[in-house]
Amino acid sequence: MTPAPDATLSDVGEFALVDALTELFPQGERVLVGPGDDAALVSAPDGRVLVSTDVLVEGRHFRRDWAEARDVGHRVAAANLSDVNAMGGRATALTVALGAPADLPVVWALDLARGIADEAGLVGASVVGGDLTGADQVVVSVTVLGEVAGVPVLRSGARPGDLVALAGRQGWSAGGLAVLTRGFRSPRALVEAYRRPEPPYSAGPLAAAVGATAMVDVSDGLLADVGHVARASGVAVDLDSECFEVAEPLRAVGAALGADPLRFVLTGGDDHALVATFPDGTTLPEGWVAVGRVHEGEGVTVDGTEYDGPWGHAHFGS
Amino acid sequence: MTPAPDATLSDVGEFALVDALTELFPQGERVLVGPGDDAALVSAPDGRVLVSTDVLVEGRHFRRDWAEARDVGHRVAAANLSDVNAMGGRATALTVALGAPADLPVVWALDLARGIADEAGLVGASVVGGDLTGADQVVVSVTVLGEVAGVPVLRSGARPGDLVALAGRQGWSAGGLAVLTRGFRSPRALVEAYRRPEPPYSAGPLAAAVGATAMVDVSDGLLADVGHVARASGVAVDLDSECFEVAEPLRAVGAALGADPLRFVLTGGDDHALVATFPDGTTLPEGWVAVGRVHEGEGVTVDGTEYDGPWGHAHFGS
Repeated sequence: MTPAPDATLSDVGEFALVDALTELFPQGERVLVGPGDDAALVSAPDGRVLVSTDVLVEGRHFRRDWAEARDVGHRVAAANLSDVNAMGGRATALTVALGAPADLPVVWALDLARGIADEAGLVGASVVGGDLTGADQVVVSVTVLGEVAGVPVLRSGARPGDLVALAGRQGWSAGGLAVLTRGFRSPRALVEAYRRPEPPYSAGPLAAAVGATAMVDVSDGLLADVGHVARASGVAVDLDSECFEVAEPLRAVGAALGADPLRFVLTGGDDHALVATFPDGTTLPEGWVAVGRVHEGEGVTVDGTEYDGPWGHAHFGS
Repeated sequence: MTPAPDATLSDVGEFALVDALTELFPQGERVLVGPGDDAALVSAPDGRVLVSTDVLVEGRHFRRDWAEARDVGHRVAAANLSDVNAMGGRATALTVALGAPADLPVVWALDLARGIADEAGLVGASVVGGDLTGADQVVVSVTVLGEVAGVPVLRSGARPGDLVALAGRQGWSAGGLAVLTRGFRSPRALVEAYRRPEPPYSAGPLAAAVGATAMVDVSDGLLADVGHVARASGVAVDLDSECFEVAEPLRAVGAALGADPLRFVLTGGDDHALVATFPDGTTLPEGWVAVGRVHEGEGVTVDGTEYDGPWGHAHFGS
């Protein structure tokens, strides 16, 4: 489909749009029945399938004036693919439910689909189905299926004495959001990181392969997500602030805003970095950096003390 | 959780609500890792998994003043479970993404979850995960996983000479919606059918077992969905109006509204009846009624002629 530049969803109609979207999704070898039927059929060779769902809402998770449709597609796919990564798995298939106003430009919906397909392609996953409906605001809900070799890495396996390690950029997206919120467009590297995260997709399976005891992807904020691991495992975690590399653009934004740039690292979400715990003495795989230690007790501390300030993002304001 | 009767999502907060919702979802034997981690893990014993997604939006698919939250839960789950039914499969697991305004009553969200869990329980499926976020209107997106014995029944397998058959109530939900739209609350049986469909969950696997050549669940409207089968299969379908049982409450509404009650049957969706094609001479399984015949050609006719009037529901008005 090559729609007129100003064509809207209502100009094109549901069925033509579904056909056009479906053409944008290449189907991989795991797909036995692809889009177009009542359900898709995906192979799950070892008899188990990982599944996770994330939803992104316009005005809350993205703004159409802050990010191109293609970037939003990358972000919503990344959020889901990252959940499989955090189990130590690899994604195989996605479904996409799109709710959108009738006056949404068709090119926006097509570019969204291209972004989702491209991000899924990074890990070899296929978009196998979806749903399309009218809604007052753009809502994109993605479900990911995946497979995992051996035992999946849960949040609940951290043990006192374990190393805590981080993989992937952390705090960049939060820095980019801080910049955009104040009406700026640079440092460009941070704005780009906000628009299109780069989750460390190889880090999850690598961590699982060396015996990671617990793992989570950072989406609520680093301290908040480490808190989820601590709570699920019944342990305390202490992070060592000196272990975090605070990248130069984050220092620049911190200086410009009069803020401690470490705050972006400790409380930012949406980069989809991974945090995992490993038995003491584990040689960390490529891309992983030790940032703390698991202890007896409960809660999360930084340099042995409670971190002062908000930890991350909570919906519904509580 | 026993929230105050007037408590809203923002009073309770995201994490407490997720915990409360999770408690409402019993986990079946197919669930290897349930809710609470980055992803769930579901068994898929034969190495394949069916997957489908449907989204329901407040004001379009349901109104909070026309249906209780529990009924909405039943409906959104039924829409998904029915897609697996239409492949000849059985659902095993669901994920639920809920977008909702901060002032939504907590009891509404909990009742929605109860409805989803109850409907899933009818077929032995478990809610294994989800996502919760703020949104301007209530948006519920459900993804279903399922398994199918042998070959799934697609839309594309109908052949000239095949019988066309229907399973399940058809037109009741459309009749109920017509009643509600005009401000009435009866016939009660139709209003109840609109609020809470009763898909024929055993009919899909039974049809697959006797060699159904094509199958679809009726969600866009009977003629529209038969049209999907005809198009995918490259055939024509003729329906025999005398084969449709037009139930008494539909006759009553037709008389009251001055409308042909057969219109509800031919164009209604949302009952999640199944339509399938079978090789000529097949003894139809329990619950299936022959309603037409597949021919060479294209398109759908009723009693050999084109049906006059709108065929069903299209989003974005085109």
